[in-house]
Amino acid sequence: MKIIVYGLGIIGGSIAASLKRAGHTVLGKNRSREPIDYALSHNFIDGEAKELAGADVVFLALPPKVAMRVLDEERFSKGCIVADICGVKEPIERAVYEKERAYRYVGTHPMAGKETTGITSASADLFRRANFVMTECEKTDKEAVEIIRSLALDMGFARIVLCTAKEHDRMIALTSQLAHIVSSAYIKSPLAFECVGFTGGSFQDMTRVAPMDDVWAELFLLNREALVPELDRLIEGLSAYRAAVEKGERDDVLALIREGKRFHDEFFARNGGK
Amino acid sequence: MKIIVYGLGIIGGSIAASLKRAGHTVLGKNRSREPIDYALSHNFIDGEAKELAGADVVFLALPPKVAMRVLDEERFSKGCIVADICGVKEPIERAVYEKERAYRYVGTHPMAGKETTGITSASADLFRRANFVMTECEKTDKEAVEIIRSLALDMGFARIVLCTAKEHDRMIALTSQLAHIVSSAYIKSPLAFECVGFTGGSFQDMTRVAPMDDVWAELFLLNREALVPELDRLIEGLSAYRAAVEKGERDDVLALIREGKRFHDEFFARNGGK
Repeated sequence: MKIIVYGLGIIGGSIAASLKRAGHTVLGKNRSREPIDYALSHNFIDGEAKELAGADVVFLALPPKVAMRVLDEERFSKGCIVADICGVKEPIERAVYEKERAYRYVGTHPMAGKETTGITSASADLFRRANFVMTECEKTDKEAVEIIRSLALDMGFARIVLCTAKEHDRMIALTSQLAHIVSSAYIKSPLAFECVGFTGGSFQDMTRVAPMDDVWAELFLLNREALVPELDRLIEGLSAYRAAVEKGERDDVLALIREGKRFHDEFFARNGGK
Repeated sequence: MKIIVYGLGIIGGSIAASLKRAGHTVLGKNRSREPIDYALSHNFIDGEAKELAGADVVFLALPPKVAMRVLDEERFSKGCIVADICGVKEPIERAVYEKERAYRYVGTHPMAGKETTGITSASADLFRRANFVMTECEKTDKEAVEIIRSLALDMGFARIVLCTAKEHDRMIALTSQLAHIVSSAYIKSPLAFECVGFTGGSFQDMTRVAPMDDVWAELFLLNREALVPELDRLIEGLSAYRAAVEKGERDDVLALIREGKRFHDEFFARNGGK
């Protein structure tokens, strides 16, 4: 099986590195030269791909708009499985099925990352114990899904979920996009520069993903239908706390605290203690 | 030097365990019996204290209202150094200096914790690499501060900050209390129970401290003057994102993202890369 990873950033580099370590033959493709050299010298890839034709599986580890263009314009071999890794799935799926395609598309979202980007942050271990989401619709080829599932296991993912693109986008608004917005808004306090020495684990957790790169603007806008209601809900939740604290209503504050604990414990139980 | 730790929960237990490991003689006092037995059997304390009189240093690892009562009513030896560990400092300081006291008070806040509570979560390593805040005013005894500072180093704290109670409370509203409220509000999404398999590190970070215990209600209300403005600021920040995303204004979203990155990088630089 000939696998090509197009786009050697942190995710693409880690896909290549983990698949190569699992015994697959992996070629890399990238617009600029340096990531190719880095991937070759770190044994992430077996060689460079000059074109996508000829591959059995192509991972597109590219920003959404670039991925959509490649999915629309690039030449893939007939029957080739093409998987993008974008953080939104409905707009990509829509772009794919605008026309008849010779390739077989599977949407994926590897739920892993770091605060840093680029191939120098990539690692064959990035996906260990992480979640992997695959999306399908009535046009999705079942065999292609099973091949991607098997490759995701080879990459080291612990849990693989298959759902519709719409379900993915709704969930991801809560589990990833909202978290990045909160983190970014959180750190913008005028007190932030003075609070060195006053921080504990909770502040570090809140602000870890604040340094987003620009691609997040694309992701937020592509998913605004799901994201805006989650923002509204969080603003409401914070406002409830604000009102109870401001009024000094101990029972109201206690009720809010206990409600949060209940939700957390329930989530924890369903998630197998994680 | 005879040290008594009153209140053997996660913080009190860890103070005792780390000081004892550093070579100090430490006695424990607790209302219920089980934590004493646990601390004895885990070598956290040398014995049980029946009263606070006779101690050179007493750590009060108690909830704010209980700590204030003990500081007001309990008998300490003349010159004894008494340090509370509450997450708010102005109300405690005010209660202490309402009268002349034979003891010497130092306010402290060990910036460490876990999602779990109680002495079974305590450890001699809890404070490693953590921040320790001490508060002072014009009535504070300088020697007492230096003794507590030295004990904090023995406990394993990496950075020790000395400031006024007011400064502490202002900072902590941002670095700790707001984080707990966000975490609690965040997890209350109707989607939370369905999103198993869709989570990555950022969701885990956002929701880690959601399971607060009831003492947080006390802390929020005691610090509402500092907390409400931070809540307002965060709600405003989220509303700015909401408006930009809802309108589909890419440049506005980008500006918000970049502003967050700037704040984060500046904080990171001032904090020595943490």
